Amino acid sequence: MIKNDWGFSTYPLVPGHEIVGVVTEVGAKVTKYKTGDKVGVGCLVGSCGSCDSCTEGLENYCPKMIQTYGFKYYDDTMTYGGYSDNMVCDEDFIIRIPDNLPLDAAAPLLCAGITVYSPLKYYGLDKPSMHIGVVGLGGLGHVAVKFAKAMGAKVTVISTSDSKRDEAISRLGADQFVVSRDPQQIKSAMGTMDGIINTVSATHSLLPLLGLLKRKGKLVMVGAPEKPLELSVMPLIFERKMVMGSMIGGIKETQEMIDMAGKHNITADIELISADYVNTAMERLAKADVRYRFVIDVANTLKPTP
Amino acid sequence: MIKNDWGFSTYPLVPGHEIVGVVTEVGAKVTKYKTGDKVGVGCLVGSCGSCDSCTEGLENYCPKMIQTYGFKYYDDTMTYGGYSDNMVCDEDFIIRIPDNLPLDAAAPLLCAGITVYSPLKYYGLDKPSMHIGVVGLGGLGHVAVKFAKAMGAKVTVISTSDSKRDEAISRLGADQFVVSRDPQQIKSAMGTMDGIINTVSATHSLLPLLGLLKRKGKLVMVGAPEKPLELSVMPLIFERKMVMGSMIGGIKETQEMIDMAGKHNITADIELISADYVNTAMERLAKADVRYRFVIDVANTLKPTP
Repeated sequence: MIKNDWGFSTYPLVPGHEIVGVVTEVGAKVTKYKTGDKVGVGCLVGSCGSCDSCTEGLENYCPKMIQTYGFKYYDDTMTYGGYSDNMVCDEDFIIRIPDNLPLDAAAPLLCAGITVYSPLKYYGLDKPSMHIGVVGLGGLGHVAVKFAKAMGAKVTVISTSDSKRDEAISRLGADQFVVSRDPQQIKSAMGTMDGIINTVSATHSLLPLLGLLKRKGKLVMVGAPEKPLELSVMPLIFERKMVMGSMIGGIKETQEMIDMAGKHNITADIELISADYVNTAMERLAKADVRYRFVIDVANTLKPTP
Repeated sequence: MIKNDWGFSTYPLVPGHEIVGVVTEVGAKVTKYKTGDKVGVGCLVGSCGSCDSCTEGLENYCPKMIQTYGFKYYDDTMTYGGYSDNMVCDEDFIIRIPDNLPLDAAAPLLCAGITVYSPLKYYGLDKPSMHIGVVGLGGLGHVAVKFAKAMGAKVTVISTSDSKRDEAISRLGADQFVVSRDPQQIKSAMGTMDGIINTVSATHSLLPLLGLLKRKGKLVMVGAPEKPLELSVMPLIFERKMVMGSMIGGIKETQEMIDMAGKHNITADIELISADYVNTAMERLAKADVRYRFVIDVANTLKPTP
């Protein structure tokens, strides 16, 4: 969004969703939350409330959804996210954070978590004993492993290099690790997976991934490549495999996601940084040098404008 | 298959599925059919009988399926299809043709018909009042229009040129016609379709087709392009649209398909040709110059080898 990779950024732009905090004040008509509640805001702060998507609780697909930053709010002002010591938000877009989760490590679940949780549920990839592949072990991928494991799946991480094998298996609890650039490893895993959550947004080949799927397996795109990818149609026809996508999730399912996280003690692995580290963090992000999400400790490090 | 476009043809090869005829003789253990029955054979004459696909009645996805021509039969002989005055087939791969359907115009339903019927059913695109797009008005496309209409859908034909508009609407009963190369026509149909049956096997862009779909709409590939197509991932992510495929159908659903055809008087539009016209027919096929299927009148025109 900062670099306008997707073509719809408007400037000035202050990014910052995956926001957590404590309620300090509520409006007169607020019924859902009270002062002192641990809450969060994800990618959305508004939607039309009346379209098919909104009616289904899928505000994330509302054509008039208002994202937490870089979008026009109802009153025509821009939204500027949560890199701030306070924020005002409609209670309908607030998520309650379970008491047992630390705020900082829970924060990334509000985007990364729901982005992988929603397709696992919606596409029926949440059944115990399924075999789920996770492509890319970054911010999205590492929580995908945790949620798929909590749902009872056997989980295989698919990565371009072997460097994250120990991490994936020992630390995150994945069952298997496949290096996508090694034809032998791909071959030995062919036709074994019920679904794959593909978090990679770089241009890459879908054919080896389709090969990993069982008949009627599902390849779910949650990373958004700028350019079209090559799609071989044969695996779709010969084995009824499917390619689909998913984008974050609605408010109701975001609450379900974080409640499940609370139950299973799922949090993101984070590096907590101070506000004055953000430019360095951006440079490291561009090199994928983060395990796995930066979280800014705004409360303790944001200095008031002089 | 004749030109080995898909890379798995073996020669000598005698094509010819979509076969119909009358039973002249049955084996001692045959229970399903008797002499005089009107029957047909589609793309398949055998399968393993024990894999997951076979157990589900999906012999078409059995890794050991035996196609009606160009495949090794159980006894290691090659299958040579139905361009013959007689044919022997396992009763489990025989389809009963409803009495009210003419044999010649019913024949193409055994491949073209089931190829479009199966995905309409499997992907839930058979609900009345759905809006279904059909891309390409050839052998598959024209029966897709008929089945989708019989299922109660509003049907829009999507074609590269305007030349088949009258044909599509007046003769085949389509409700709308969209020229895919006309940006204005595509624009006016954007976001209106629940599903699209894409019969085109030439290389083409999927992006305009994805644009025609409503949120969570389904683009079903039944034409098999040799080369990968460009897939823009954004419509999949932003609106949970899906790309999938389908290949013919199982024996049970082929029988269901033709029973439905009987009930609704659905047949293919054919040109009935004599056996000595096949080379000319092949040349015309390569130019898409057929409305919409050639059927060879073997019984009346095949001359015995001198």
